[in-house]
Amino acid sequence: MLKPAPSPADDHAAPTAAPVGVAIVGLGYWGPNLLRVLADNPDVEVRWICDLDHDRLTKYRRRYPAARVTTQVERVLADPRIEAVIIATPVHTHYELAARALEAGKHVFVEKPLAPSSELADDLAGLARERHRILMCGHTFVYSPPVRAVKRMLEAGTLGDIYFISSSRVNLGLHQRDVSVIWDLGPHDFSILLYWLSEIPTTVRAIGRDSIVKGIADVAFVSLSFASGIVANVELSWLAPSKLRRTVLVGSERMVVYDDGASEPVRLFDSGVVYRDPETFGEYHLSYRSGDILSPKIESDEPLGLELADFVGAIRTEQEMGFHTALARSVVRIVEAADRSVREGGREVSLDHGDIGSQLADYREFALA
Amino acid sequence: MLKPAPSPADDHAAPTAAPVGVAIVGLGYWGPNLLRVLADNPDVEVRWICDLDHDRLTKYRRRYPAARVTTQVERVLADPRIEAVIIATPVHTHYELAARALEAGKHVFVEKPLAPSSELADDLAGLARERHRILMCGHTFVYSPPVRAVKRMLEAGTLGDIYFISSSRVNLGLHQRDVSVIWDLGPHDFSILLYWLSEIPTTVRAIGRDSIVKGIADVAFVSLSFASGIVANVELSWLAPSKLRRTVLVGSERMVVYDDGASEPVRLFDSGVVYRDPETFGEYHLSYRSGDILSPKIESDEPLGLELADFVGAIRTEQEMGFHTALARSVVRIVEAADRSVREGGREVSLDHGDIGSQLADYREFALA
Amino acid sequence: MLKPAPSPADDHAAPTAAPVGVAIVGLGYWGPNLLRVLADNPDVEVRWICDLDHDRLTKYRRRYPAARVTTQVERVLADPRIEAVIIATPVHTHYELAARALEAGKHVFVEKPLAPSSELADDLAGLARERHRILMCGHTFVYSPPVRAVKRMLEAGTLGDIYFISSSRVNLGLHQRDVSVIWDLGPHDFSILLYWLSEIPTTVRAIGRDSIVKGIADVAFVSLSFASGIVANVELSWLAPSKLRRTVLVGSERMVVYDDGASEPVRLFDSGVVYRDPETFGEYHLSYRSGDILSPKIESDEPLGLELADFVGAIRTEQEMGFHTALARSVVRIVEAADRSVREGGREVSLDHGDIGSQLADYREFALA
Amino acid sequence: MLKPAPSPADDHAAPTAAPVGVAIVGLGYWGPNLLRVLADNPDVEVRWICDLDHDRLTKYRRRYPAARVTTQVERVLADPRIEAVIIATPVHTHYELAARALEAGKHVFVEKPLAPSSELADDLAGLARERHRILMCGHTFVYSPPVRAVKRMLEAGTLGDIYFISSSRVNLGLHQRDVSVIWDLGPHDFSILLYWLSEIPTTVRAIGRDSIVKGIADVAFVSLSFASGIVANVELSWLAPSKLRRTVLVGSERMVVYDDGASEPVRLFDSGVVYRDPETFGEYHLSYRSGDILSPKIESDEPLGLELADFVGAIRTEQEMGFHTALARSVVRIVEAADRSVREGGREVSLDHGDIGSQLADYREFALA
Repeated sequence: MLKPAPSPADDHAAPTAAPVGVAIVGLGYWGPNLLRVLADNPDVEVRWICDLDHDRLTKYRRRYPAARVTTQVERVLADPRIEAVIIATPVHTHYELAARALEAGKHVFVEKPLAPSSELADDLAGLARERHRILMCGHTFVYSPPVRAVKRMLEAGTLGDIYFISSSRVNLGLHQRDVSVIWDLGPHDFSILLYWLSEIPTTVRAIGRDSIVKGIADVAFVSLSFASGIVANVELSWLAPSKLRRTVLVGSERMVVYDDGASEPVRLFDSGVVYRDPETFGEYHLSYRSGDILSPKIESDEPLGLELADFVGAIRTEQEMGFHTALARSVVRIVEAADRSVREGGREVSLDHGDIGSQLADYREFALA
Repeated sequence: MLKPAPSPADDHAAPTAAPVGVAIVGLGYWGPNLLRVLADNPDVEVRWICDLDHDRLTKYRRRYPAARVTTQVERVLADPRIEAVIIATPVHTHYELAARALEAGKHVFVEKPLAPSSELADDLAGLARERHRILMCGHTFVYSPPVRAVKRMLEAGTLGDIYFISSSRVNLGLHQRDVSVIWDLGPHDFSILLYWLSEIPTTVRAIGRDSIVKGIADVAFVSLSFASGIVANVELSWLAPSKLRRTVLVGSERMVVYDDGASEPVRLFDSGVVYRDPETFGEYHLSYRSGDILSPKIESDEPLGLELADFVGAIRTEQEMGFHTALARSVVRIVEAADRSVREGGREVSLDHGDIGSQLADYREFALA
Repeated sequence: MLKPAPSPADDHAAPTAAPVGVAIVGLGYWGPNLLRVLADNPDVEVRWICDLDHDRLTKYRRRYPAARVTTQVERVLADPRIEAVIIATPVHTHYELAARALEAGKHVFVEKPLAPSSELADDLAGLARERHRILMCGHTFVYSPPVRAVKRMLEAGTLGDIYFISSSRVNLGLHQRDVSVIWDLGPHDFSILLYWLSEIPTTVRAIGRDSIVKGIADVAFVSLSFASGIVANVELSWLAPSKLRRTVLVGSERMVVYDDGASEPVRLFDSGVVYRDPETFGEYHLSYRSGDILSPKIESDEPLGLELADFVGAIRTEQEMGFHTALARSVVRIVEAADRSVREGGREVSLDHGDIGSQLADYREFALA
Repeated sequence: MLKPAPSPADDHAAPTAAPVGVAIVGLGYWGPNLLRVLADNPDVEVRWICDLDHDRLTKYRRRYPAARVTTQVERVLADPRIEAVIIATPVHTHYELAARALEAGKHVFVEKPLAPSSELADDLAGLARERHRILMCGHTFVYSPPVRAVKRMLEAGTLGDIYFISSSRVNLGLHQRDVSVIWDLGPHDFSILLYWLSEIPTTVRAIGRDSIVKGIADVAFVSLSFASGIVANVELSWLAPSKLRRTVLVGSERMVVYDDGASEPVRLFDSGVVYRDPETFGEYHLSYRSGDILSPKIESDEPLGLELADFVGAIRTEQEMGFHTALARSVVRIVEAADRSVREGGREVSLDHGDIGSQLADYREFALA
């Protein structure tokens, strides 16, 4: 990670010895996981728990009696001992809550996706840059040990040139009125692809269907084309017989299967194509050699713990998290484009990433340490 | 199956008591399987084995000494005791061989795909109709017991309305200079979909990549849209870490997974969406109930045996095989459209099926007996 | 569950409205899970956390600030607001701690196995009876939804008569100097078998090996014979390439596979033997019909939560937990016998269960509500 | 393989250029596979097909018109151009048929098990030795590529010292009046174990049950103890929800899972035990490190083809097949002992192998070329 020039004086910065004062806003589906991990981190002091629902506040106050609870985010933002705000609310509230927190001088960690549009995501990034605050988005898979193991293989050239990637993320989950499956599940795959490839797709095409709720796609097949020639196909669905989170990378030297739910989450296939001389004119044969398969040992650290430790560490050491902000902005762009393509019957949508592409490439070595 | 008016006098028709005289042309990859099954069928007499390769002829003469061998297809076609010709040669030779056999008054069974273009496929169908000969294409999966089990579920309404279908057929196989993976593997999925749905897609989109041999796509993601609203996505690839032939059908009542290589090839999921009242304004939740899963018993008959028995039976009883001809023509149209879409960067290609659609629908009840 | 005559006056009994005051003793491997579940139960007030290790106490005080911590079990037992003590210490300390707690008038929940010998287990049971206290042992699998689903099938006659049971419980876990794999993993299988069959084996045979630590078997194959003719074979091992917890029950009507780690933990096989007439003298054929397979929906409740809720509920409603005490005593007998058989080279060991057998049978209907 | 001194003059020995004249006796369950493989072997001429059933003879004459058919084994044995007889009849006929063939000067390949008792097996071996004929038993798994891959690992020390072996071979198959599941399925596992370990067990214990047919065990759990300390447990059953052929070898360095029906039949687990210092007196911890897993590429040659080619090659080159005869005799001893143990309620049965043990050890290097 790049360490920029020392940041300007910051009244809110805690001395490194004391725990970082943190507030969590939103205790719905994912917030309790964030809260649990924060509470276990000795470098963190959870000072506020904020949610609109009184029953939830009662429940979590019982479990974390050291924190104060409130339904008023203003009280949280007004507390000078709060250095960072963790936002785990519905997507349509991300922008307003994050912007207010940044304006109040807080570092912000917001659940994925960063914002409900690329314009708003860019706005937040600009605001964070102006205020010298960290803006990080919860693309937790980037901290997942199997995802990192694949990243190391890619950087080491183990797979050779990547030809294509095929991914399925299908699930039975909650369904919200204002969010398609692309907004819900797409950020997982798109963040993983951006992290692995350090490259942004140039065009996106998607077809899907709003099987259950009119206007909300609950299944989508998203195709991404990259300037390097790589093709990626991502199946996203809330309607599936069983949960599946499986990505196949096919390279010129080897193939990898990353299966997030499997006991062997990464499997490396030492098989490739072997050219064979044509036997007769008009025929041309290739034979494929099927070779060894390796399931490397993968650490079992919890990705969310690693991610929040990185966020807290960056606050303490005054590091920028430029890769993360660029990644989060790119993800919103891809989601937005895929969602538009589905609504327009599969039309090709080009992506303009402006300055983000070079930022992603700058951080190519991220997380290989 | 429809039984048409009695066919006109036919000099070549054998009395039902005697076995049907058959020739096989092409002993490459798939031909030997056809030969084995024909040799075991007591209603068939394999009289000729024809291939351009002398070593192959020597090998199969040893195994089937009762048949004559030749490199000259003319000798086969000139034999009046040959009623049917089985063609298992490379795709680019299908049209010429099938046309010559039909013109010689033979019934024809040709390996899939029927012809290398829809025009030639239509020509063959016209020729067969004129000559009152059966023209059948080896879409063997239509005879596969698991595929038929799913067909019965569809006809019985077990799945409710179909929302979408997601299929993967990935494999490590032979690679030929003049045929993309869409021509090679696509006919399997497309024939199954046509058989299940009795409906032809209206548009096709596909993206892919020619990773190994320039100009020959070895991976493709094909999207089919149907007038009924069904969306199907088919992944086809010669480059995969392991063989997979898996199709998921998601319906309003139940879901089915058909996995051709699995010990339980059909699994029926009694899970669906349950609506739940929104808890608060702005939120809208669906909960998904995960229910029982059933793996019905599937017969273990060999599809190829069933298919060739059907072909021979149709010859003996002078039945038309109109469904099969319509299916084979439709498959060629879809393959052709998908191949064009890949070459044109994923452009949408509309399908004009002319009279085929109604023919497919007429045979909706096929194979449910 | 049987509700006995009202228990005698009990100074320590809390009014049903107030939470039950509980202490937990032992925060090693399993204790933290008990603590988490107790802390989430609104009918429980965790008043004391007791462990010999100061670091652990510090860690859990941070997480559960409402509880007091101590290294002195005397302080716990002297607190009149403690109604129940939860013991999760090493096996060799179970007897002394449980006995002292019962003598102090507390209800006791002790991790499995109940005691390091059947004599001491019987002693504890006697002490609990005398003092009118509940003595429950943490055979958590008896509360596991898949185990209960199989129990319901057995009681409903779905499987017919049980012919045999084959179980594997292999694992990579901690290894202690004074406990063989039979003492460590055996209680899981033995408690499940006792619960399912409501019958105690008459003889036990086991062979094993002390591969790593001299004198401590780390693998054992235990065979149990029941008076009803049922045979059960249980493989227990700390040395296995991957975790497996799989039990197969073969009955005259159907078979069941219970796989604790699988996404479909219970699978019911509608396959059985079909008699076929002998074709010729001297030959006798049976054909086996392979039929449908059903994976019933299984609830996802946490067994530990159900178990502790049952314990607390029994305290509040002054119920006896006779089945649990009988089960726990039986388990210790089987473990003891299997351990002796391994040490004596596989010798058959007979089991004398005294009054326990009839107690188990009395509670046959347990947990079917 | 050892090549002995040149064998004495042999009137029946064919010149190496001509194919070996072979007869097959018994076309029931397994015979047709032998026949198919023999017919495809260019070094073999199948001259006779012999079975008591006329319909079978008719069927196979059609498929293999070059061979003569008969119900009279005398005609086969009287044919001087027959060098070898392949016997695939029911077990109780093995001895008489093999003895007559050896006495007629033929080499003999007999399906497993070699004979219905160890006395008769020894008799056959003696007869073969006297007559300088090859006597080989169809323990085909010894030629299976995955079994050989494990053998190479064992010889290379990849696994370290073997601690124990756990095997399951469960199946839904035919059931005969006079043969228990131990006689039917046991030879597979026992031959594999003998081949791998080059060591004969000293004691056998087995429990089982005759669930369906009185007196015929259809399930058995067989425990084998070896002088080297290795313990093996083999589960054999005709009554199982699904076919399973899985063997786990646990060694001091690595573990292997051999799963005959899996797409990855051999998986090598780089995981072992790591000693950790005791934290406190009275406690002793080991931690287990879970490491990489490797699925080596396994050749896909058909074991039966390799086996019969070896048999035919030995005839042509006048080699002894001493390892095979010793293996087959050992297998019968183990089966006999396990069957007796089941009938005697699990009693330990000692094995006396006489001269066989040293013969097995002599051929330790067998099949590693």
